[in-house]
Amino acid sequence: MTTSIDFYFDFSSSYSYLALPGIERLAADRDVSFNWIPIALGAIFKANEHAPPSPKTPKGAYTARDVERTAALNGQPYRWPSPFPYNSMTAARIFWHIEASDAEKAVEWAKAVFHAAFGEGRDCSNREVLASVATALGLDAEATLAATGDDGVKAKLKAVTGHAMERGVFGAPTFIVGEEMYWGNDRLNQLAAALT
Amino acid sequence: MTTSIDFYFDFSSSYSYLALPGIERLAADRDVSFNWIPIALGAIFKANEHAPPSPKTPKGAYTARDVERTAALNGQPYRWPSPFPYNSMTAARIFWHIEASDAEKAVEWAKAVFHAAFGEGRDCSNREVLASVATALGLDAEATLAATGDDGVKAKLKAVTGHAMERGVFGAPTFIVGEEMYWGNDRLNQLAAALT
Repeated sequence: MTTSIDFYFDFSSSYSYLALPGIERLAADRDVSFNWIPIALGAIFKANEHAPPSPKTPKGAYTARDVERTAALNGQPYRWPSPFPYNSMTAARIFWHIEASDAEKAVEWAKAVFHAAFGEGRDCSNREVLASVATALGLDAEATLAATGDDGVKAKLKAVTGHAMERGVFGAPTFIVGEEMYWGNDRLNQLAAALT
Repeated sequence: MTTSIDFYFDFSSSYSYLALPGIERLAADRDVSFNWIPIALGAIFKANEHAPPSPKTPKGAYTARDVERTAALNGQPYRWPSPFPYNSMTAARIFWHIEASDAEKAVEWAKAVFHAAFGEGRDCSNREVLASVATALGLDAEATLAATGDDGVKAKLKAVTGHAMERGVFGAPTFIVGEEMYWGNDRLNQLAAALT
């Protein structure tokens, strides 16, 4: 039986981008499927009174180095988006708009946004950038962007974020399979070990 | 040529204990040697205005689960010391006292304290517990404990902690090899990859 894994991520999370090769490998090697669930991680940070480390701190400086090193080991292109972190709300709302009618296309959207943001360093809070990503995927850019003002789409993002928080999600990427939660691209190996 | 790796740790750090099997594996498989350097991580946290997550927060609860899961995957016994975290200053001072005359014995001390604290859940801030660990290693327990009041030993721990901070150490375990710093037991694989 295919094991279903909930994959919580934020479009502005470097480590979520860095998890993509591991996810693809796991999906290719094992009988698993990933449910892609973009959330508004900023809202969770706010509720938990948590902030990611500033680049000016020793931990922040190290994290930047760790991200670049991990990307290189993964063989992924990596460019810091500017600004970083960026407001990922629009990209996430578009995901849920697409997902309502086409779940596979929504995953394509997620991959394309991650590539634009971290592979190319483009500002994916910018509506024109997102419009060009939509067009490249064969979507109607104008209609896609307009959907970000839709009450149902806004409510969906809020609901999945709230549900993630209820389940204990506090960072990204987070994977939940059965009763077990794994935080971080560097825990996919533990998740894989638990599958056997 | 043997590659020398600085291994910064704190005796009250679960993840430092969890790094021990990886260190042993790396030392067995590769031409590397580890310099064991216990520091007073609390002083660094204080200087950086950083605190580990409270067990009452979602991140703290997850971390506890992650520690236990990682220990199980490592095949290491794991028991939370009580209290946790504990004041590791005395254990660290004793390390530096022993190290002044016998570096190998100091590493034995470190392994024995880690096992007592996290393998058996004993309170290694307690002088009687540390005396029994010293006796089991064939050390003169009374002289060993008395050395913790020695000015030179106190200064040594302070100096290595200060030097660690200057190098950017902000948590434990941290490994430094050449110009590269790796934080966390889960980065030993990246360190190993960089050796080739």
